Amino acid sequence: MAGVQDILVSAGINLLSALAFLMAFAFLRLQPINDRVYFPKWYLKGIRASPKGSGTSVKKFVNLDIKTYLRFWKWMPAALRMPEPELIEHAGLDSVAYIRIYVLGLKIFVPIAILAFAVLAPVNWTGETLVHIKDLTYSDIDKLSISNVPSGSLRRVLELWAHIIMSYVVTLWTCYVLYKEYEIVCKKRLQFLAAEQRRPDQFTVLVRNIPPDPDESVSEHVEHFFCVNHADHYLSHQVVYNANKLAKLVDKLKSTKNWLTYYQTRHERNPKKRPRTRTGTLGLIGKSVDAIDYYTAKIAKLIEEEKAERENVMNDPKAIVPAAFVSFKSRWGAAVCAQTQQSRNPTLWLTEWAPEPRDVYWDNLAIPYVKLAVRRLLMVVAMFFLTFFFMIPIAFVQSLASIDGIKKVFPFLKPILQVTGVQSFVQGFLPGAILKVFLSLVPTIIMITSKIEGHTSLSALERRSAGKYHLFILVNVFFGSIIAGAAFEQLQTFLNQAPSEIPKTIGVAIPIKATFFITYIMVDGWAGIAAEILRLVPLILFHLKNTFLVKTEQDRENAMNPGSLKFAVSEPRLQLYFLLGLVYSVVTPFILPFIIVFFAFAYVVFRHQIINVYDQQYESGATFWPDVHRRLITGLVISQILLMGLLSTKNATKSTPILIVLPVLTIWFHFFCKGRFESAFKKFPLQEAMMKDTLERAKEPKLNLKAYLQDSYIHPVFKGIDIDRPSTVDDEENNPLVATKRKNVHLSRTSSSINSETVEDVLQEIASHW
Amino acid sequence: MAGVQDILVSAGINLLSALAFLMAFAFLRLQPINDRVYFPKWYLKGIRASPKGSGTSVKKFVNLDIKTYLRFWKWMPAALRMPEPELIEHAGLDSVAYIRIYVLGLKIFVPIAILAFAVLAPVNWTGETLVHIKDLTYSDIDKLSISNVPSGSLRRVLELWAHIIMSYVVTLWTCYVLYKEYEIVCKKRLQFLAAEQRRPDQFTVLVRNIPPDPDESVSEHVEHFFCVNHADHYLSHQVVYNANKLAKLVDKLKSTKNWLTYYQTRHERNPKKRPRTRTGTLGLIGKSVDAIDYYTAKIAKLIEEEKAERENVMNDPKAIVPAAFVSFKSRWGAAVCAQTQQSRNPTLWLTEWAPEPRDVYWDNLAIPYVKLAVRRLLMVVAMFFLTFFFMIPIAFVQSLASIDGIKKVFPFLKPILQVTGVQSFVQGFLPGAILKVFLSLVPTIIMITSKIEGHTSLSALERRSAGKYHLFILVNVFFGSIIAGAAFEQLQTFLNQAPSEIPKTIGVAIPIKATFFITYIMVDGWAGIAAEILRLVPLILFHLKNTFLVKTEQDRENAMNPGSLKFAVSEPRLQLYFLLGLVYSVVTPFILPFIIVFFAFAYVVFRHQIINVYDQQYESGATFWPDVHRRLITGLVISQILLMGLLSTKNATKSTPILIVLPVLTIWFHFFCKGRFESAFKKFPLQEAMMKDTLERAKEPKLNLKAYLQDSYIHPVFKGIDIDRPSTVDDEENNPLVATKRKNVHLSRTSSSINSETVEDVLQEIASHW
Repeated sequence: MAGVQDILVSAGINLLSALAFLMAFAFLRLQPINDRVYFPKWYLKGIRASPKGSGTSVKKFVNLDIKTYLRFWKWMPAALRMPEPELIEHAGLDSVAYIRIYVLGLKIFVPIAILAFAVLAPVNWTGETLVHIKDLTYSDIDKLSISNVPSGSLRRVLELWAHIIMSYVVTLWTCYVLYKEYEIVCKKRLQFLAAEQRRPDQFTVLVRNIPPDPDESVSEHVEHFFCVNHADHYLSHQVVYNANKLAKLVDKLKSTKNWLTYYQTRHERNPKKRPRTRTGTLGLIGKSVDAIDYYTAKIAKLIEEEKAERENVMNDPKAIVPAAFVSFKSRWGAAVCAQTQQSRNPTLWLTEWAPEPRDVYWDNLAIPYVKLAVRRLLMVVAMFFLTFFFMIPIAFVQSLASIDGIKKVFPFLKPILQVTGVQSFVQGFLPGAILKVFLSLVPTIIMITSKIEGHTSLSALERRSAGKYHLFILVNVFFGSIIAGAAFEQLQTFLNQAPSEIPKTIGVAIPIKATFFITYIMVDGWAGIAAEILRLVPLILFHLKNTFLVKTEQDRENAMNPGSLKFAVSEPRLQLYFLLGLVYSVVTPFILPFIIVFFAFAYVVFRHQIINVYDQQYESGATFWPDVHRRLITGLVISQILLMGLLSTKNATKSTPILIVLPVLTIWFHFFCKGRFESAFKKFPLQEAMMKDTLERAKEPKLNLKAYLQDSYIHPVFKGIDIDRPSTVDDEENNPLVATKRKNVHLSRTSSSINSETVEDVLQEIASHW
Repeated sequence: MAGVQDILVSAGINLLSALAFLMAFAFLRLQPINDRVYFPKWYLKGIRASPKGSGTSVKKFVNLDIKTYLRFWKWMPAALRMPEPELIEHAGLDSVAYIRIYVLGLKIFVPIAILAFAVLAPVNWTGETLVHIKDLTYSDIDKLSISNVPSGSLRRVLELWAHIIMSYVVTLWTCYVLYKEYEIVCKKRLQFLAAEQRRPDQFTVLVRNIPPDPDESVSEHVEHFFCVNHADHYLSHQVVYNANKLAKLVDKLKSTKNWLTYYQTRHERNPKKRPRTRTGTLGLIGKSVDAIDYYTAKIAKLIEEEKAERENVMNDPKAIVPAAFVSFKSRWGAAVCAQTQQSRNPTLWLTEWAPEPRDVYWDNLAIPYVKLAVRRLLMVVAMFFLTFFFMIPIAFVQSLASIDGIKKVFPFLKPILQVTGVQSFVQGFLPGAILKVFLSLVPTIIMITSKIEGHTSLSALERRSAGKYHLFILVNVFFGSIIAGAAFEQLQTFLNQAPSEIPKTIGVAIPIKATFFITYIMVDGWAGIAAEILRLVPLILFHLKNTFLVKTEQDRENAMNPGSLKFAVSEPRLQLYFLLGLVYSVVTPFILPFIIVFFAFAYVVFRHQIINVYDQQYESGATFWPDVHRRLITGLVISQILLMGLLSTKNATKSTPILIVLPVLTIWFHFFCKGRFESAFKKFPLQEAMMKDTLERAKEPKLNLKAYLQDSYIHPVFKGIDIDRPSTVDDEENNPLVATKRKNVHLSRTSSSINSETVEDVLQEIASHW
């Protein structure tokens, strides 16, 4: 148990390290050489370009203007300056809605913190139960047990009621803010959708599970079905090719070309020696060959293969999967088709809103119903084991990575292990490092399970993964830290303990763990956010690529890795802070300022990042908000149940009936909000569709919609290659250069489940954990 | 604990009483005077009519043909003779799907019973653990604890595996049968809908929560909204009047007229004395007046009032509620509108399939969203208390109804109470009677809560009530009988016991309670079904009405009370038998023959009833099947968990991991079926709609749909009174006389929550319980 002084020291250290990150950021961002790492968004928008030979060559790399260093903190007000409507236009609604979550945190916790310090702190300080806060000072666990306070005293009653009333205030205030926020986001989404320019997905519906027809091709079958059943509205359709193998080939070709460039660059710098490589895994084993010749030959072979596969896909009728993008003459027609059931058998002719073209996850379009159901079952079971038995393999690897374990497996390492430095490294650092590595793999594993589940868009994949990761964090970080045991041990405890005992067990542990969580907030929250803005991994990767791979301006564009918000990872982590704030707001309000600082700091940092750095892969119009809302409600209910448990141990079981009202009301509130707002995030009202249609018809009566939609939903590997691509495609991007770039990024991201991209993600993950 | 002999005796007694009921039925049904009680359906169909003066007057009342008595059992084969397609046409799909539940019971349990007796019985008999079945013979509870059997013996392992394999077989077989049955019912429903004649609800959508408009009336607002947003499909609409007060007046008028008729009949039979009545409650208190004059005056006043109210409703714009029935030019247009969201705000312009005109529950059409949400919350809380604290008021009333309680409240009754007969009646009979009365009130209370919840159709009300009643029976009858304690005590036990302990506690009690449930099946099941076919209450009520109220042939029609299946009451009770069968199929298969007899007997009886007696108020096309399926799955999961608990107490905790697979698979199977079939019961596929539209357009190109739909959705109090009612309305009934009759029945049923109808229901309920 740490005292207040320890906490202050820890806060100081973390503040200093966060400040160090910030200073490093402030310095590095001003160097022109890093410009593409810290401001990639502007390059992608086409507004910024590499300095072209203006001034001395030193100035191209290093910033010598002293004055700019004095204004190093200027990025903060700059980040806050851009007004929200402009920000939505600049970065999209997804990003803006995401940073609103931080503001939501401030809105919830600032008033609660003020009230808690005004009301609860005096009650706790002056009351006999000030052991509550004293545990921070004296770290005497015995004094913590509030049950030794004589019950029934007036002060006792006062204190109890103060807590009960406070918990009501917290619930009501949180629900009020949540309702208002849901309303605002909902309105913004509708405005966003209404203000949007014409986009292919507004007219298009994704049709899956098209039944096979012995007499017709998929394309003919689709055409006939929709001509009959949506006679007045059907316009055209695009079949989907199974280009997974082709996409892998394209990917492989790209990476091989990179290696060739790398060796060519090396050769150019050192013309005397021709670089050599080995033909086996990672160039480490196998026969040694001349690298440039080897890769040139390999590329030639791959190009050949790719060409054959491309022809194969285009000509083989079996390469057409039973799914199609069906377009309609009006938004109304598409809205109708997306929301209705088409055929007798509800597992055939499944229709849904088509995702944006860049949002489509092509691999999953062709999974039949039964297979999908089986996959989902298997993934639920897998997630259960991942969540609750996550610690077992780690413990196993950790035991292997101990001194004795290493000695057993690699006896030849014995002499090295006897060096004291190595020994203490193995003992002190390795177990923690292994845990971190495993933990950082979790989001990737979760994303893979989501992909297996068969969602058809990247946004759906991210949303689904976020839900699973939230559960994982809840079990392994929150409950894991409080009960201090592996998740499967918790599970056992829960199964063998009465339901009424569980909140008590956890509730009692909560005040004790306050200091731990304060430290956690500072390490994971404060320092983590500061590390986020520094972008150390992309910085290093960019400079590596820039040195070895970049030849043209286009290569430099490709070498940038703007990254994105990574909703699937960052939102569930964020939810933990909400949970901590709600749980501790009544119990130990001392934690609230730390959370408030986190939210405020994170808000500024992420606002800066979405303005200058991140490049979202897709725009879903804040479709994730219902999930955010639901998880917040979950946190609120958990906090209420734990408070019930805590108070009932304080000889105040009578408080339970008063407190049980809160979760009931909260859950009801959730369903109320769901009914009130959720469908705005799932469906497209006909009224809106009709309005936009009418407007468009009046403004552009001669629009050739068919030409506009012609190739919009074509697999990315076919894009840019077809000569007859109409210029209207992807007109949400006005800059053709940017659009081309985007397609390439997209291509590498959607092509296969685990590729170099994923490895890079994992690297960044690990970095962000440390 | 009863031995096998006791069970046989009890079975004998119950068989005899069931037989007595059947004999009484066989005798009574042959008397012409009872013809309208036992064959009302044929009268309503217009196929049968009262004998009109043919033959002697005695023959009109009593059947003197001895030969017919000798064929008294003939109704059984007769009931089975009608083929299913004809039955669907005769009684509707709802009824046919309902009796299929009994066949489903036979399909599930007959093979399981054969297998269980072939496999489990020998294992149990020869094994050391035959205490299991012996408990039926020796009623020695100590021998029941299977833990005193030496574990680890070969026979022990054999026995354990026999049970585990049997539970797998039961689960797989049940799921297989359920899947097949879901498929068949789904197909039958689609065929039924496809084969149906033109009906107003096919073209009509119920629109609720129409937002108020300051400049337009509701009617204009609806017209404009749909003309804009469904321009090509909108046809017409009918506003809904708030005629609740008027309906009450019509009801009151009808009952007053009945009283007048009653006194006039009495006066005619005894012309010397004019009957008198009192003006107060039930004619028991208040001033004594001449009955005929009093009621004549009252009727005149009521007619006046009704006329005024009718004019008021028709002319006052405030009497129009913000709901409307909107009709479309095609089924396709209606299907589209019912399945899509209309406006930005998902709580406004709510559209759903219009129920059949006779299925509409008019009182609930105008509840705004917030009010509805609050009502649902309150009703959930109310249902929680009803389910778990149901025993508290009963215990209180029972304590009042004891000798001491009565003495205290009514001291003047002391002398009567000292009579031994009265005393033993109060002590022995009253507590049970009070319990029965309270129990029989439960379905009515549940129906009232469902009405408050705001469902808009009778079928939805019944389905919702069935769900609640199922929960009530599960908690109070099934768990209540096993744990033997009031539900709130169970709740306390569950809260204070570990989740892994609960299945053990219940599981252990299950074999002990087998005899109790066998008796229950015979008393409640066998005798209850026999009482159902006897129709004692409708028989008495009919003869009372026939004597005092019937003057014309039309009156006699009205005096018939054909009743209906009462899905909300009978289906949840039926589910209990499935649950018992599934729970005991592995543990004590001895119970299965009793359940099989119940299902077979009930099938014949209900088939007879739906052919000859019941007159369904509405036809929903088996919309309830997903609920039936879900509740069966619930029963299956409960049985699996209890078996896990039972086996884990038999020193066989190792069986848990093998058995836990079953509930996971079963729940997955449920979701699989849900995805595969459920939407066929909720949505109307566009393909089907388009097919019917095209067919109709080809067959009747000149159909005047607007005229056809004009008045189809008009509140029943306005029906039959407007002169300009088109003859096409209600053409699903070809007989105009029947149609008129139906409207009257309908009228009294839909007009208010608790009226004379309800009281009659309760009476029948009580009767069916005894």
